[in-house]
Order: sequence, then structure tokens, then C-alpha cells
Amino acid sequence: MSDALFEKLRAQFHLPDDKIYLDGNSLGALPRTTPATLAETVENQWGTDLIASWNTHDWIDLPLVVGNQIGKLIGAPEDTVVCCDNLSINLYKAILAALELNPSRSAICAEEQQFPSDNYIAAGISQLLGEGRCSVKTLRIEEMTPQNLGDTAVLVLSHVDYKTGSLRDMAQISANAHAAGALVIWDLAHSAGVVDIDVTGCEVDFAVGCTYKFLNGGPGAPGYLFVHPKHSSASNPIPGWMGHAAMFDFESSYRPAQGIRRFLTGTQSVIALSAVSAGLAIFDAVSVSALRARSLLLTQQFIESIDGSVVKENVALITPRSEVARGSQVSITLEDAFPISQALIDNGVIVDFRAPNIIRFGFSPLYNRMSDATAAVKVLAHILKSKQYEHPRYQKRSIVT
Amino acid sequence: MSDALFEKLRAQFHLPDDKIYLDGNSLGALPRTTPATLAETVENQWGTDLIASWNTHDWIDLPLVVGNQIGKLIGAPEDTVVCCDNLSINLYKAILAALELNPSRSAICAEEQQFPSDNYIAAGISQLLGEGRCSVKTLRIEEMTPQNLGDTAVLVLSHVDYKTGSLRDMAQISANAHAAGALVIWDLAHSAGVVDIDVTGCEVDFAVGCTYKFLNGGPGAPGYLFVHPKHSSASNPIPGWMGHAAMFDFESSYRPAQGIRRFLTGTQSVIALSAVSAGLAIFDAVSVSALRARSLLLTQQFIESIDGSVVKENVALITPRSEVARGSQVSITLEDAFPISQALIDNGVIVDFRAPNIIRFGFSPLYNRMSDATAAVKVLAHILKSKQYEHPRYQKRSIVT
Repeated sequence: MSDALFEKLRAQFHLPDDKIYLDGNSLGALPRTTPATLAETVENQWGTDLIASWNTHDWIDLPLVVGNQIGKLIGAPEDTVVCCDNLSINLYKAILAALELNPSRSAICAEEQQFPSDNYIAAGISQLLGEGRCSVKTLRIEEMTPQNLGDTAVLVLSHVDYKTGSLRDMAQISANAHAAGALVIWDLAHSAGVVDIDVTGCEVDFAVGCTYKFLNGGPGAPGYLFVHPKHSSASNPIPGWMGHAAMFDFESSYRPAQGIRRFLTGTQSVIALSAVSAGLAIFDAVSVSALRARSLLLTQQFIESIDGSVVKENVALITPRSEVARGSQVSITLEDAFPISQALIDNGVIVDFRAPNIIRFGFSPLYNRMSDATAAVKVLAHILKSKQYEHPRYQKRSIVT
Repeated sequence: MSDALFEKLRAQFHLPDDKIYLDGNSLGALPRTTPATLAETVENQWGTDLIASWNTHDWIDLPLVVGNQIGKLIGAPEDTVVCCDNLSINLYKAILAALELNPSRSAICAEEQQFPSDNYIAAGISQLLGEGRCSVKTLRIEEMTPQNLGDTAVLVLSHVDYKTGSLRDMAQISANAHAAGALVIWDLAHSAGVVDIDVTGCEVDFAVGCTYKFLNGGPGAPGYLFVHPKHSSASNPIPGWMGHAAMFDFESSYRPAQGIRRFLTGTQSVIALSAVSAGLAIFDAVSVSALRARSLLLTQQFIESIDGSVVKENVALITPRSEVARGSQVSITLEDAFPISQALIDNGVIVDFRAPNIIRFGFSPLYNRMSDATAAVKVLAHILKSKQYEHPRYQKRSIVT
């Protein structure tokens, strides 16, 4: 990516001058176009055109329109992604759909350490259906071989691990699952928009994600669901009216819409979807490959800065150094990680803490500068040297860290 | 309600000068404070304070804060309502929770003609669990006696019917269900904010609703779920991380939060919730009883105008004339209902059509004037007399009607 293109992209975000924002892996920054998009949706469409907007402003198709914007970033064909609900609910729908598609098997296989909500959802399904119909087993990534997946109905896995930032081999693991007769669901929350993804080429069965991280859709922005077109018969276990073949005919029985629309549940927030759409429009100007290249330069710069700094003695890198195994964040472990994370934030370097001793530095190639990576390490070195993190004000844990 | 109070309330909405908006039962009008609330949430909180806003602006509690705003309108105790997901998903959670609470029974009882999404959800659960564990039966309202509910685990019913505008006797039907050993879930989509509701006094087990109709939360605004505190052990079948007892500890096993928070799934849209909160703040200035009284005057005025007009010969009222059985809309059936509904809209009277031959006139006591009721009938009379609805442009059905 040229410097000129990067500056053009960065200029599209509202970023506080006094902060180095390295938490775009948790909440992406505000696109400058989002407020105007929201004003158009709220004041002109809702306010003036009112109920007619479902037709005239095509609100009814917005989950599919935004789904197609996301689809371009993950290698999905047209009309195979729907933006709706949240990641946990989409995962719930995908697991139950997968179990129905693979009825001779009952095991959901997951990685024990992955983002826990995904495993809560899997466990909840097992509890609902009963162990006989559905059980959950966990394997480590390296154990996810065809031999070990022979009993698995569906494998549920994060593409990039939320704690370590490790990037998994989607092609290989998907192939292993398929060779074993299992389906696979990928959680793209920490990879979409910053890592090359080819759900079509990898024959991924289902993928889920959220839009509030690297896609910059706003706090708690809706999730999405990709269903491979080979699974056109897959069914939605939460069959709300928005997924009906003729939603405004109010038929007494459910008939699923053709294609991805059947995975809609009830009515979706048009305001929230508008904000997502504004954030995604920024990706029209740049390829994911170019973003991936820049992301690797940023994380490499950060790792090299750690290696070249006195902080090296205090910290351990838990993110893989190998480029093929690295997402768009770098995580370190260190003593006193919590107060140090709070001191970093107080010094303008916005990071986050994950128990028990992890600090995550997330890099968004759309707006993080190379100097953000080096400056963050300098501030960390200063905090360690000055021991300012020992101040009592950095000890108190709030709900969200 | 005094004229002065009404004018004050009406002034809080953006209403197009050239329209008589009688579709607030489908999409409530835009509150004038909503754009500024959204700007604060988006530009100041998200844009400037970024990830810290989860703490500093209490985003994390927003589903409960908004839930409490809704709770005041439906007679719910503090901290028994959560605003999240959509109505269909909340109903899905409620039905499964109810089935677990009433394990010796397997039948979901519903009204066949009610809003179909509710029945799709019930049928989907039956299909998922199997007929042996869960079946769906339908009864007419007058059949919902203790004798007929003896096999019922949970009764699912709309408080106000979306087509006819009939208001059901929540106290009596809830008592019937309880006398039969059944639980009850009320769908408040068409009653909250315009009808006196006492979920506590009626010992309602669960209630669900949406916020985009009479609550003016915006297109597709989130749903809500009330769970009676006597069901503190009820469990959420979609156990996402936001309902965990210690969500930011990222424990490997799910432990439900105490109270209503456990019914959260994944992350909720802060932007969408902010808009809902702005709309609900308007209710601080007026009691539901006063709104109910004004709603009845509006629908009575409309019915009397019909009775006194030549249109009387062409239309049949399907909304009960009895005040205790009437919600906040009046529905009529008539020949050529679809083109006539389109001609009404074209003449500035915004109503909606429901197949096969229904036109719905919704009245929001927060902003509809008595003159709206009389003017709507005059326009209808003009359209019928002039036969302008026979023009081909009024024949074409769009997706959303």
C-alpha cells in the first residue's frame, strides 16, 4: 500500500489526536462518514419518509446488501452472507443447521481456549438437545486431524484467536474436517478485513463474525452469517418472519426464503445496519491483500521494537512470530499486566488486558501508523522503568477491561 | 390528558406537515431528541472515548437501563426487563425457558391467527426438540379455559392482535393458564405504551415486545424480554457471553448472571439502544393511563366518524367497539382494500394493508390529533366516491405493504 493510499484511508477515521489507538481489534474507530449516514437514515428516511422507507429506501434488503459488502472481504459469493443478530446467535443458528445437515454424528468439536462465548453456545445446544443427540468435545489445534474428527458433526473454530492473535490455517483445517466427514464453522471476528480469507476456496460450510472490530461498524454492531451455497437446504432453527419466503403475506405456516435470507430471524435494526454499511464502504478503496500486507508490517514493526527494547526482558510474546500464523494483533504476557495496561491507557496508548496476564496490541491497517507500533513500545518501556504502574489508581479493575 | 400536555408531547416528534400518520402501530415517528442522542453516542462516546465508553458511558448496562425504561410502561419491577435482540429471538428464549420450567408438559398453546412469526418460532422449537418433547396446539381465545389448557406447558399470546386490534384480557387469560398449571408468555408488541399493562399484578411469567412501534425506537429497533422474578432459575438457551456472571473473566464454562442479565446473548448494538432510550424518555412526562385514555378517544372518534359517514356502507369494522377489547388501532375490511390503501397513502393518510382485505388505522396518543381521525375518514370517503383507487398505479403490490 502506498503512503498516499494509507493517508487517504486514515483520513477517513475520527481518531483522537492525543491517543495511540491499538484496540481496533476490540472496537474499531469511527469512520468520518458514519454520522452523516446515520443522519440520512434517521432524519430523512425514518423521520420524513417513515414506513414507506421499507420500500423506497430498501430497508428490507439491508441485511443482504450489507451481507454482500462483508462477503467481498471473505471470499464469499454474492448473496451468501446476511448481516443480522449478533455473533453468538448466528453461531447458534449455524451449529444447529450443521447438526441437521450431518445427522449421523452428534459431536461439536471446539478448541477449549477459544473465545468462550462460542463454547458457551455449543454447550448450551448440547444441554438443550441432550448428550445423546449432541455432545461437545475439545481438541487442540494440532489435534484437529482427520483421524480425530471421525466422530465430529461440526468443528467450531476461531480463525484468529482472541487472546494470542494466532492465525489458523483455514484451508488445511477445513480440509481435515471434510476428509473426516465433519462440517466446519469459522469464527471470523478477529480476521475479517485484515486477513485474506477465501471461504469459497476453502469450501467453508458456515462462517460467523461481528462488525464492530476491524470492520468499524460501531459498538455492538450486528453480526453476520455465511452459509455455503452447497447447503441451500440448511434450515434456520429460529425461523422468524423476516426469513419467510413471503414475509408480508403473513402465512400461518413457515416457508423458508430461498438462499441466505432464510437465516434472518425477526426485524433487524436499520440504524445499526446503516452504520455498518458506512464503515464497510471504506473497504471499496483497498484490497484485503493490501491491508493484510500492511497489517503484517505493523505487527512486525511492533515485534521488532519489543526485541530492540529493554522491555524485552520483562515480556513474553505469545503471538506467533511466523507471518502465516499471525493475525493483526500482538499479545504479550508480563507481570503486573493489569496495572501496566491501565498505565498505558493513561499515557494515551489504548490497549486491553486479558486475564490473567495478557496485554493485547491490536493494529488496524486502515488507520494505524508504523509510528504507533514504535511509540507504544517506548511508552511501555517508560512505564516499566518508572514503575508508575505501581500507583494505586492503576490497580482497580472495572467491569470491562 | 390536557390539550397543553398533548401539544407538548406532539411537539417532541418530527412529523411531516403534509401527512396524517396513522401507522405508528407499525413504525413509530421520529422523536426530535433522537438525532442528538445518536450524535452524542456516535461522535462523542464512540468517536472520542472509544473502547473506554463501555465503562465511562456505561454501555455495558444499556440493555438493562433501557429495559427498566420499558419496565415502567408494563408494570414490571426494576431489573426484570432486558432490551436486546429482536422479538422473535426473545420469544424463542422465553418458550424454551418456559418448557424447562414446566418439564412435565410438552404443549405450546397459541392462537392460530396471531402474528405468524410467533407461531413460526413455536413450530421451529417443536421441530427442533421433536413432537414427543414439544408440540404446538392452537386454540381460539374463548377456548383458553383452564379445562382446555390442562396439557399446556406454555401459552403464547398477543396482547393486542396485529390484524384486528383486539385487546385480550391479560388478567383473566393468565389466571386461566395458571389455574391449569401452564405458564404464559405475552407478546406486547401492539400494546406497550398505549394500553395499561400490569405484568406483576397478572403474575405474567414472560413477556416480549419490540420497540419500533408505539415506543418510537426506530426502524427494526431491538426487542425486549420480561421474566417474572419468581422464575429466577430460568435459563437462557442461547447463553452468550453478555449473560455470563463475569463476562470479562472469559471463564471456560458458562455461569449465568443473576437476574435478567442472563437473558442477554452476544453483544448488543449501542447505537440502536441509544435511539430506543431517547424514544422512551418521552414517556417520562406522561402516564400510560393518560395515554390509554387518549388512545380510546382517538379510536372512538375514528369509529364514530365511520359510523357517521357514507363509507359506512362500504366497510366493516373488525376491531371491537367495546373499549375493554380495543387496542390502539382500528381495522376495517372492504372490497378493493389494497388499491384503496395505496390511494389513502397517496392522499397523505399513511395506513397499511393486511391481506386479504384489511386496512389498519393506527393511533398513537403521543402525537395523533383528534382531527387526524376525522380527516382520515373524509379522505377515505372521497376516494370511495371518486373511485380514484381504480387507477392502475394503485394496483401494484410492493414487498412491504
